[in-house]
Amino acid sequence: MTDLIAGLPPFLVLDELLKSWLVEDIGRGDHTTQSLNLSAKRIGQAKWIAKEAGIVAGLPVAARVFQLLDPETVFIPQVTEGEVCQQGQVIAEIRGSLAALLTGERTALNLVMRLSGIASLTRQYVKQIADLPTKLVDTRKTTPGLRLLEKYATQVGGAINHRMGLDDAVMLKDNHIVAAGGIRQAIAQVRRQIPYPLTIEVETESLNQVQEALEARADIIMLDNMPVEMMQQAVELIRQTSDRIKIEASGNITLATIRSVAETGVDYISSSAPVTRSTWLDVSMKIS
Amino acid sequence: MTDLIAGLPPFLVLDELLKSWLVEDIGRGDHTTQSLNLSAKRIGQAKWIAKEAGIVAGLPVAARVFQLLDPETVFIPQVTEGEVCQQGQVIAEIRGSLAALLTGERTALNLVMRLSGIASLTRQYVKQIADLPTKLVDTRKTTPGLRLLEKYATQVGGAINHRMGLDDAVMLKDNHIVAAGGIRQAIAQVRRQIPYPLTIEVETESLNQVQEALEARADIIMLDNMPVEMMQQAVELIRQTSDRIKIEASGNITLATIRSVAETGVDYISSSAPVTRSTWLDVSMKIS
Amino acid sequence: MTDLIAGLPPFLVLDELLKSWLVEDIGRGDHTTQSLNLSAKRIGQAKWIAKEAGIVAGLPVAARVFQLLDPETVFIPQVTEGEVCQQGQVIAEIRGSLAALLTGERTALNLVMRLSGIASLTRQYVKQIADLPTKLVDTRKTTPGLRLLEKYATQVGGAINHRMGLDDAVMLKDNHIVAAGGIRQAIAQVRRQIPYPLTIEVETESLNQVQEALEARADIIMLDNMPVEMMQQAVELIRQTSDRIKIEASGNITLATIRSVAETGVDYISSSAPVTRSTWLDVSMKIS
Amino acid sequence: MTDLIAGLPPFLVLDELLKSWLVEDIGRGDHTTQSLNLSAKRIGQAKWIAKEAGIVAGLPVAARVFQLLDPETVFIPQVTEGEVCQQGQVIAEIRGSLAALLTGERTALNLVMRLSGIASLTRQYVKQIADLPTKLVDTRKTTPGLRLLEKYATQVGGAINHRMGLDDAVMLKDNHIVAAGGIRQAIAQVRRQIPYPLTIEVETESLNQVQEALEARADIIMLDNMPVEMMQQAVELIRQTSDRIKIEASGNITLATIRSVAETGVDYISSSAPVTRSTWLDVSMKIS
Amino acid sequence: MTDLIAGLPPFLVLDELLKSWLVEDIGRGDHTTQSLNLSAKRIGQAKWIAKEAGIVAGLPVAARVFQLLDPETVFIPQVTEGEVCQQGQVIAEIRGSLAALLTGERTALNLVMRLSGIASLTRQYVKQIADLPTKLVDTRKTTPGLRLLEKYATQVGGAINHRMGLDDAVMLKDNHIVAAGGIRQAIAQVRRQIPYPLTIEVETESLNQVQEALEARADIIMLDNMPVEMMQQAVELIRQTSDRIKIEASGNITLATIRSVAETGVDYISSSAPVTRSTWLDVSMKIS
Amino acid sequence: MTDLIAGLPPFLVLDELLKSWLVEDIGRGDHTTQSLNLSAKRIGQAKWIAKEAGIVAGLPVAARVFQLLDPETVFIPQVTEGEVCQQGQVIAEIRGSLAALLTGERTALNLVMRLSGIASLTRQYVKQIADLPTKLVDTRKTTPGLRLLEKYATQVGGAINHRMGLDDAVMLKDNHIVAAGGIRQAIAQVRRQIPYPLTIEVETESLNQVQEALEARADIIMLDNMPVEMMQQAVELIRQTSDRIKIEASGNITLATIRSVAETGVDYISSSAPVTRSTWLDVSMKIS
Repeated sequence: MTDLIAGLPPFLVLDELLKSWLVEDIGRGDHTTQSLNLSAKRIGQAKWIAKEAGIVAGLPVAARVFQLLDPETVFIPQVTEGEVCQQGQVIAEIRGSLAALLTGERTALNLVMRLSGIASLTRQYVKQIADLPTKLVDTRKTTPGLRLLEKYATQVGGAINHRMGLDDAVMLKDNHIVAAGGIRQAIAQVRRQIPYPLTIEVETESLNQVQEALEARADIIMLDNMPVEMMQQAVELIRQTSDRIKIEASGNITLATIRSVAETGVDYISSSAPVTRSTWLDVSMKIS
Repeated sequence: MTDLIAGLPPFLVLDELLKSWLVEDIGRGDHTTQSLNLSAKRIGQAKWIAKEAGIVAGLPVAARVFQLLDPETVFIPQVTEGEVCQQGQVIAEIRGSLAALLTGERTALNLVMRLSGIASLTRQYVKQIADLPTKLVDTRKTTPGLRLLEKYATQVGGAINHRMGLDDAVMLKDNHIVAAGGIRQAIAQVRRQIPYPLTIEVETESLNQVQEALEARADIIMLDNMPVEMMQQAVELIRQTSDRIKIEASGNITLATIRSVAETGVDYISSSAPVTRSTWLDVSMKIS
Repeated sequence: MTDLIAGLPPFLVLDELLKSWLVEDIGRGDHTTQSLNLSAKRIGQAKWIAKEAGIVAGLPVAARVFQLLDPETVFIPQVTEGEVCQQGQVIAEIRGSLAALLTGERTALNLVMRLSGIASLTRQYVKQIADLPTKLVDTRKTTPGLRLLEKYATQVGGAINHRMGLDDAVMLKDNHIVAAGGIRQAIAQVRRQIPYPLTIEVETESLNQVQEALEARADIIMLDNMPVEMMQQAVELIRQTSDRIKIEASGNITLATIRSVAETGVDYISSSAPVTRSTWLDVSMKIS
Repeated sequence: MTDLIAGLPPFLVLDELLKSWLVEDIGRGDHTTQSLNLSAKRIGQAKWIAKEAGIVAGLPVAARVFQLLDPETVFIPQVTEGEVCQQGQVIAEIRGSLAALLTGERTALNLVMRLSGIASLTRQYVKQIADLPTKLVDTRKTTPGLRLLEKYATQVGGAINHRMGLDDAVMLKDNHIVAAGGIRQAIAQVRRQIPYPLTIEVETESLNQVQEALEARADIIMLDNMPVEMMQQAVELIRQTSDRIKIEASGNITLATIRSVAETGVDYISSSAPVTRSTWLDVSMKIS
Repeated sequence: MTDLIAGLPPFLVLDELLKSWLVEDIGRGDHTTQSLNLSAKRIGQAKWIAKEAGIVAGLPVAARVFQLLDPETVFIPQVTEGEVCQQGQVIAEIRGSLAALLTGERTALNLVMRLSGIASLTRQYVKQIADLPTKLVDTRKTTPGLRLLEKYATQVGGAINHRMGLDDAVMLKDNHIVAAGGIRQAIAQVRRQIPYPLTIEVETESLNQVQEALEARADIIMLDNMPVEMMQQAVELIRQTSDRIKIEASGNITLATIRSVAETGVDYISSSAPVTRSTWLDVSMKIS
Repeated sequence: MTDLIAGLPPFLVLDELLKSWLVEDIGRGDHTTQSLNLSAKRIGQAKWIAKEAGIVAGLPVAARVFQLLDPETVFIPQVTEGEVCQQGQVIAEIRGSLAALLTGERTALNLVMRLSGIASLTRQYVKQIADLPTKLVDTRKTTPGLRLLEKYATQVGGAINHRMGLDDAVMLKDNHIVAAGGIRQAIAQVRRQIPYPLTIEVETESLNQVQEALEARADIIMLDNMPVEMMQQAVELIRQTSDRIKIEASGNITLATIRSVAETGVDYISSSAPVTRSTWLDVSMKIS
């Protein structure tokens, strides 16, 4: 799992967000810490301890949060991104200006708790289908402002990212298709205008629609809320046309149902659950 | 519950965030919608439908999201903030440029789903103690960037906000107290330097510490992770000194334990659970 | 050509750039105009006149520039985006506060002159291959800060956009391939980690490399600087594998050579020339 | 006075402001300095000299201003924040790139001159009541954009800060009270909705209003523009109720009247004069 | 005085500053006003009353501040910019959402109080030399962030602006001259590199330096801290060379000395006193 | 040419632009490079090679671009700004994190290619008049967002900058003159209100207008689109009045006509051609 870091863009892209999050908490100043008149040179040592078992995600981001307050901070993860932590386990050791540790604690922890919660639930879904070729993918249901990091967390958990926004792939849903006058017309019109490397995905709810999408040469066909048997038929139909068309199943996937859906042979199963149904992994900081 | 809107600052304060969230999703453009070449004058009508029961929160913010894309959008909530919605209930009706509806949908829904999820779980906690004078309060464990809105959601759910950041109240925890050399010293030093209207809260873990906090004239005393009986003794001790000191209980509050804690007579019970343990309320948009 | 507007994202995405460009020119104030103490109510009428023939692009953006200074400005294009204008032709009529017209003139004109210059040269390239199925595509060689608008201009000129940035498709060049240890390894590693709808393009310089890219299941194969005959062989080789693989020719395309390259049957020819070799279309504003 | 630094938030919070102030002065470039073509390695030494006696404030901020231009700058205060300087005294020595010294000079000096002016007048007020328990507090009458730094300066001068903005305490004035239908209703309504650690201050102009505020359990009672005798009666009335209620006197406090007001026993006297009536302390820079 | 508005750039240039100033005061919300749950439709009427006599400046900016909170606000100045107001005079009437009036009051008033204070002291200096051709000019000693508005205020008071920043004119002081190796070298080097319409001003402290500046063809010669008789000689010397060279006197100008300096025949007298020695004009808001 | 760097402001002024340009290209991440999972410590070496001859401009800015991604990057120009490079010549060597080299390449190259293209064409114009006292100046026709850098490039090419924006000099064109009621009135009104060091330039199209501008004491007289003989007469007329008035020729200057215009004795010839008619200098990066 050492290549998971792929999901993190250069900090140049994240720094303004990270700063804004620190400022959100600090506001006009950390009156508690500032009143202690700690010398900038007073060094503190801290440990981060997992209060429950789960998958850890976000430590490199937490490190950056502290470094934005005090560039000298040394943040040493004790767990690799994506690894399991046990309750009570030390997941990071930090050494830096005591004032920076106290002021940055909440923002850094909030991030890691949220991201680890997502990674942990993602891993549960992924485990159900780990021996099958089907992959779990995420959705655009992410907390506003955290799209990049929450999708990083699903990747850490073992999922593959779906499109990151409205601009890196096309997804034709009912409303778009109706507005264009049909799947064929919609794909034709879109293809003429989008950047050519972008793929076009079409939502289908019946075999007829699958057939129409095939004829219109969709790149990805989403089987939306279909019964498992219909999915199987759809997969067969599509595979007859080309093995380059990607097939995605979608709609109310649960831990109980994901395996049967995967067994239909779809390439991807998309679910917002790892993001919208996960709770935070409890982590706390102890200064020594 | 009509005064819940108190938690929302003027949109001047929120607009930059809302815009950045739209831009996060749109990126370089909504290729799907833009390729449909919808005239700006083509009007769409949409309904928002709750897919599960819960407490609705965030509709005024969702309205603003659409209006930032198309100022002419009319967004009519069908449920008052903080009211219960049933599965299948229409919670909002929207009329505006079809392109704006399609492009803004995800960002607006993500907000309301997240905030309503928080409000819904908050309400469950609040209901356990609704007939007692004790109030539920939130914490600073909030998603980075959403502090204001997530705290608005706990308010919509029936909680009272705790401090909003590091700058509107002082909270002395172990580490601060150790750094200052004791509760007495810590309070004295802080009091000398903070804006005078700010209150000072002290975390205590024993009756001795409560006593020390009382003598040092803390404004708020937090009983942290105390057994219920110790809490009761602490409450008595504090009430003997002054009825103006606020008492807060904290530490692993659950739906099962909150009532027994409230019955000790504390003024406030703080819990991060409504934010960190809630899942999103499922809402979808249907264009007609 | 009425659907060209597809290339323009909602103004929400562009407004901050447009404002920054006005502020770049205005600085601390337009001393000339301000000293004239024109009442905000003094209305001016202006015409924009093409001083040379070409393809017009950017008028909707110019309209927005003036409206950011004075929301009441009425800007009426006299030419549709992408249409030819003749020398001396009026391409827009504007009515608004005289002060806003004087202050916004240069910024608005600079944009349209630059974008129309690009559209004009693009059109010349496109015309050479207009009767063939091959399409002209642009590149990432665009003026920093103007990526979206310059790519909009190539679209107005008749080209198709290539990827818009480093995040909406993968392009494996020599350096990446060497770093990964070969085309096969590079594609395998990338495929495992990128958002799944993204396509992977591989740069090839020989038929061996084309073969390797085919076996590794690249989505797009770029024939880089190949002689025309080699290109023809490459096209044949690729078409035998699948008609879903896109073929792009690249490298020193000129008005003289583009047609012979297109006749090899490649799907796309990419060229930076419309952006890097175009000059501005001369347009001036006349206030009456 | 070594703990005065408490008023300064982490530079993370201030840096954007400081940069914007440098950019305000530099604009498109410091043509004078740039034309001299000074090598970045040419080091200059400068002294800051007080041209009049006063209290020095803002040196750590000035240091940061230079460091934002040249991180290598060494800025050594020769006077501690809050200490008296004499006319002609060197208050700081600076060593850094000559270009950075020349370009940053005005912005850095303007800050220290303004802040030291405020600290100096604050000190005069504070001295009048230095032997009494009453403390001087500031107000929200501060120069837009300088709230944090001007309040830091009053703290350096010896005052205590009042609330920093509209969000860290509640202040009920006539208009609010009228809108709510009375002091009692206003406090009740506000208390139900604000973050619970926040205090509520009520402006009173008569003993009746003081009584009403007491009954409504205000946290802070402001005696606004009362004659000294009425103030004395108000203080007695309030002290009978609780020694935890804070009493603030306000309204046209001058150097001549502040002592008699303090002798009424109020806890705090608020005055905008240190900010609105102070002039700048003259300081100049000499490069050697 | 109707053309004074010349000093104000389009609001496009100021709006971000004005918003940031409102946000500085509002922070996370105006808890007092928000808790009153005022309907957005509840309209308030307010008057602004001068509590002392002076020159009014900044009302158009104050109007904008309120309009940024509530675009419907009607703000009607009762005094023209630059006119005298008497104690007790109503200088503006405002009608708008009551919540916006309460929330925006402090920021808007702070601006007008500061700017009117500057305009008032400026006017006193200007009056001393009103019958002479010499003009008062300001300096770059302005509050960081308020450069544009404070220079607008000196203009409203009757002064002429000096350069607005480091980029719209060149000023050669000792340090620059020493670095370049003399006045002649400095001017020659600078002239070769700056935008050609920019003027070059040279600080001189002796007649020799004046002579050198004349020979080097300075555009503006500043007589810095010269005795009045030396100034007279300098003026004569310069006038013999060309009547197009502008002469500026500088250095410790007071209300007592300004007239005698002006009588030497210099074109301009620069003084920072209107900005650094002025206090705020007291203005308050009354809601009816 | 070693003092050309004069045109570059401190990076404090440019950094936000440079970052925004990197982010424009990177978007949500450089999927290609990130997927390679290059260790941050993996160092790459690169050469920049000119693919055609020209004048190099912008290398210090390119260096900064890479350093914003990786502060350790060492960027060593092999050509001084403004020097000629030959086809195939190495113009820079770079050593830094391989990931930063790959991710920053396009943005850095785009800048240098554009700026060098401008410098190259500028140099051609400058050469035509190199032995005459007349200087080439640029205009405000620059790509939005690149004003500072494109004007830096014309300076590198050998031109002098004209005004940088609407705020550092006044230019009275037809429309302004008509609005003011004549040249005399326009100059008088403007002079009364602008910062006094600013110069006033007037556009003239006839000897009558030149005469009027002289009488109104314009600082700079622009001879707009005049035949060469009329220009000569205008120059004579102006020189009779004062040798301090600057004369600028403008209007459709080409490489063929510039010399004859210069021979009329005008001080400056302005032309937008170096910016609007230049193409990019081809430069590519080779990683070893």
